[in-house]
Amino acid sequence: MSKIKVTIWNEFVHEQEGGALGVLCRQWYPQGIHKYLAGVLAADDLEIRAVSLDMPEQGLPDALIEDTDVLMWWGHVAHSKVDDALVEKLAARVCNGMGFIPMHSAHLSKLFRRLMGTSCTLHWREVGEKERIWTVPRKHPIAAGVPETFTIPHTEMYGEAFDIPDDGKIIFTSWYEGGNVFRSGVTFQRGNGKIFYFSPGHETFPIYHNENVQKVLANAIRWAAPDFRDDSFVSHTPQPLETVYSENPLEKIDTSALHKTL
Amino acid sequence: MSKIKVTIWNEFVHEQEGGALGVLCRQWYPQGIHKYLAGVLAADDLEIRAVSLDMPEQGLPDALIEDTDVLMWWGHVAHSKVDDALVEKLAARVCNGMGFIPMHSAHLSKLFRRLMGTSCTLHWREVGEKERIWTVPRKHPIAAGVPETFTIPHTEMYGEAFDIPDDGKIIFTSWYEGGNVFRSGVTFQRGNGKIFYFSPGHETFPIYHNENVQKVLANAIRWAAPDFRDDSFVSHTPQPLETVYSENPLEKIDTSALHKTL
Amino acid sequence: MSKIKVTIWNEFVHEQEGGALGVLCRQWYPQGIHKYLAGVLAADDLEIRAVSLDMPEQGLPDALIEDTDVLMWWGHVAHSKVDDALVEKLAARVCNGMGFIPMHSAHLSKLFRRLMGTSCTLHWREVGEKERIWTVPRKHPIAAGVPETFTIPHTEMYGEAFDIPDDGKIIFTSWYEGGNVFRSGVTFQRGNGKIFYFSPGHETFPIYHNENVQKVLANAIRWAAPDFRDDSFVSHTPQPLETVYSENPLEKIDTSALHKTL
Amino acid sequence: MSKIKVTIWNEFVHEQEGGALGVLCRQWYPQGIHKYLAGVLAADDLEIRAVSLDMPEQGLPDALIEDTDVLMWWGHVAHSKVDDALVEKLAARVCNGMGFIPMHSAHLSKLFRRLMGTSCTLHWREVGEKERIWTVPRKHPIAAGVPETFTIPHTEMYGEAFDIPDDGKIIFTSWYEGGNVFRSGVTFQRGNGKIFYFSPGHETFPIYHNENVQKVLANAIRWAAPDFRDDSFVSHTPQPLETVYSENPLEKIDTSALHKTL
Repeated sequence: MSKIKVTIWNEFVHEQEGGALGVLCRQWYPQGIHKYLAGVLAADDLEIRAVSLDMPEQGLPDALIEDTDVLMWWGHVAHSKVDDALVEKLAARVCNGMGFIPMHSAHLSKLFRRLMGTSCTLHWREVGEKERIWTVPRKHPIAAGVPETFTIPHTEMYGEAFDIPDDGKIIFTSWYEGGNVFRSGVTFQRGNGKIFYFSPGHETFPIYHNENVQKVLANAIRWAAPDFRDDSFVSHTPQPLETVYSENPLEKIDTSALHKTL
Repeated sequence: MSKIKVTIWNEFVHEQEGGALGVLCRQWYPQGIHKYLAGVLAADDLEIRAVSLDMPEQGLPDALIEDTDVLMWWGHVAHSKVDDALVEKLAARVCNGMGFIPMHSAHLSKLFRRLMGTSCTLHWREVGEKERIWTVPRKHPIAAGVPETFTIPHTEMYGEAFDIPDDGKIIFTSWYEGGNVFRSGVTFQRGNGKIFYFSPGHETFPIYHNENVQKVLANAIRWAAPDFRDDSFVSHTPQPLETVYSENPLEKIDTSALHKTL
Repeated sequence: MSKIKVTIWNEFVHEQEGGALGVLCRQWYPQGIHKYLAGVLAADDLEIRAVSLDMPEQGLPDALIEDTDVLMWWGHVAHSKVDDALVEKLAARVCNGMGFIPMHSAHLSKLFRRLMGTSCTLHWREVGEKERIWTVPRKHPIAAGVPETFTIPHTEMYGEAFDIPDDGKIIFTSWYEGGNVFRSGVTFQRGNGKIFYFSPGHETFPIYHNENVQKVLANAIRWAAPDFRDDSFVSHTPQPLETVYSENPLEKIDTSALHKTL
Repeated sequence: MSKIKVTIWNEFVHEQEGGALGVLCRQWYPQGIHKYLAGVLAADDLEIRAVSLDMPEQGLPDALIEDTDVLMWWGHVAHSKVDDALVEKLAARVCNGMGFIPMHSAHLSKLFRRLMGTSCTLHWREVGEKERIWTVPRKHPIAAGVPETFTIPHTEMYGEAFDIPDDGKIIFTSWYEGGNVFRSGVTFQRGNGKIFYFSPGHETFPIYHNENVQKVLANAIRWAAPDFRDDSFVSHTPQPLETVYSENPLEKIDTSALHKTL
């Protein structure tokens, strides 16, 4: 059985910042969130690559995009730096079967918003309050081995109203000490590609060190991996499949030959 | 009761073309599809504006976008000419409540694809075959007054697989003489905005002259009109709503103040 | 404009009980929850009938069912007393267009479970804790005039995992002091009928005295009222619509005439 | 790896009928549709049991229900003979994880209607016309190895409007020679259980002899098999999870102890 090819993309900005924030961030993720996750998610059935915005072609050359089964994404302050053309390529690759796992503040990444079509805005507050996470379907592969409820002692609050489309299937929902609630784990499908948004995670709170959070991400990779590759769909199919005719058969004309695309 | 403000946008290219196609198109729509639809859809409760790509600001200055309740869209060969910035503005306006009715080949318009997140591709064939349209929900406002089934004698075939998200509610589905089927009328919601895609329509077949097609579009305008205006959503809500504390209350820190957005 | 015909059904058991519970219940609803709601929801565009399980034909004779646009339902300990045949009649009436608003513990009513197809079970706890309710869509007719968030000081907790189908559109979601979350207001459609489940409400806590709860119920009635009546759908349609034939036309046989239904 | 335990239930009436219909049916299914399908679907990873309505406990004793991973169902004229109590047991077993594959005229079976909550009615016509089936998602496990489109030369027509809930994901859609269309393969989830309705199949047309139809059913069994067993969900959870209190802590009362269920 071939390995699932995972690419973890990180904007990798906070980890290299000066000031208090950089210090706090490097305390938990000295080589970056992407390298940290690549380490804790390592497994025999996965081939994991950790890349970042500061690399050539923003870390995602065409050959790597094509060779990726599941793309994980961490971004926060540098969303606008990501090339629009790259976003279009990635969105097309998702529709063609690549799994996509936007994490935490990637709810506002260009790629997630491009795939959702909505603003993806939400309420937020950063006072280090407690979050309690609930599994909503009683059995789901992404929640396998995860307790029905577990807590994160200090987190950034993300709260409803979360502006996402109605086809999101809720896998996790969160309670916050300060009075908010949030659909914190939601799946979507776009074309052949499976998407799982998961909000727990942060640059200074050590949330990716939580074993349940790691378990969810590990499950999500296997869930999002494509069953199939290569969508060889052909749009223009000039021949009718049925040789059926109305009572007064017409002289049929293919007027599409007259069109010029601008 | 105030009127529903409708803006009909047309790329207005085929109608001005030289050659056989232009002649065929002007035969049915001498002043353009937008002007024709503005005429047949005119009603006391509507204020209709017909605009086109060749107008200043591509026909959609900010003041008009803001003043539009329902945007109808016809495009075919000039999708790529529409400014990306305009598309982003319109997508945000839909999420903020504006109704959107992409028609026929607008399935590949930037705006519809931006709101769907998928490729929106489909099978197509242009041999003038018969289309039979079925209403799927037994009662729906968009189908009010329309027969359960009706035909269009000569049409361009649009067939499954249609690459749209799973939250599309099917209002109409089509049968084609040549052996294909298609979800030809589908509703979506993105943010506060209601969307209705309707495939019947064409530049050379006189499909917008069909009274059932006109009835569907007239119904769709009323359905898509927003119940409300002005989404005054505020994302950052720094104060907890509940003054509740864990057993070991923490020194809470608002680290968001440390962030700089690039 | 004709009035919306609303029928409020109540099992009307707790209100007539002896013991502490009966006393607590009658304190808020001396004539029963159904009569109380009929009073506070009274409006010029509504014709409201309050009925109960102890009435002839369990309060719902055929003529009343047929004459009802929106059925509200309160049940708790007497679900099993409701006739199965009545449940089937009501389910068919919903599919034929009647709106249905199951309230609070009606999540386990036969009718709601019949329409959902799932167990409709959930977590629950009754310690009088605080509930905070959030509106999830930023604009929705059921939430019109209701604050984005409001609280109920003492409530029974209903928590996830709530076993309902995936087509539920979340209108409200609740936070509980004790650490749970819940999809507390959810819409569905079954056939032509609109359904709105709303969990706030109780027999001893005075939750139906809350003006926001009343506002939600008032909105829901208008939302659930049918646009149309009379589904005259005919299943057997023996004549083909298209007189089209395969290359080798067949002798077509209507074998359905051979069938006998047992 | 343990085998998937499949139970194929058949009302087994047409096959034992006198008259022309019985002769036509036995021509293709001499031992019954259930025995025929058990033969053609046999595989190393499956343990298949074929049962029928005329067996003790209508073919489905409790021990067999509990031991079934995927239940396939064929019924037509004897729906009303199936015990209501058996239907309730099976519906609960589906919510607890058992896969369910209703076939052809099982759209009107009590169990499918119980799980859908709708009337499940549709248009139908039996003149032996041609059906053309299309795969709607470009890649789906149920369609693996099946051509994008294939035909059945003579079939019973099932046509829209098909009264099913909106959460049905369309896997196959059908075109009929006589002018109708139909969502002929649709998935649902109810609780932990996966459901796949598939309309191709009939008692006298040899549709289960079609290799593509067999491939779809074989795929569907693997798709519907549960990932997990045993839903040990406990509804009443009297202890709060968070020891948090409002500013004015209340004397909390568990009033649930006062309730008596009738």
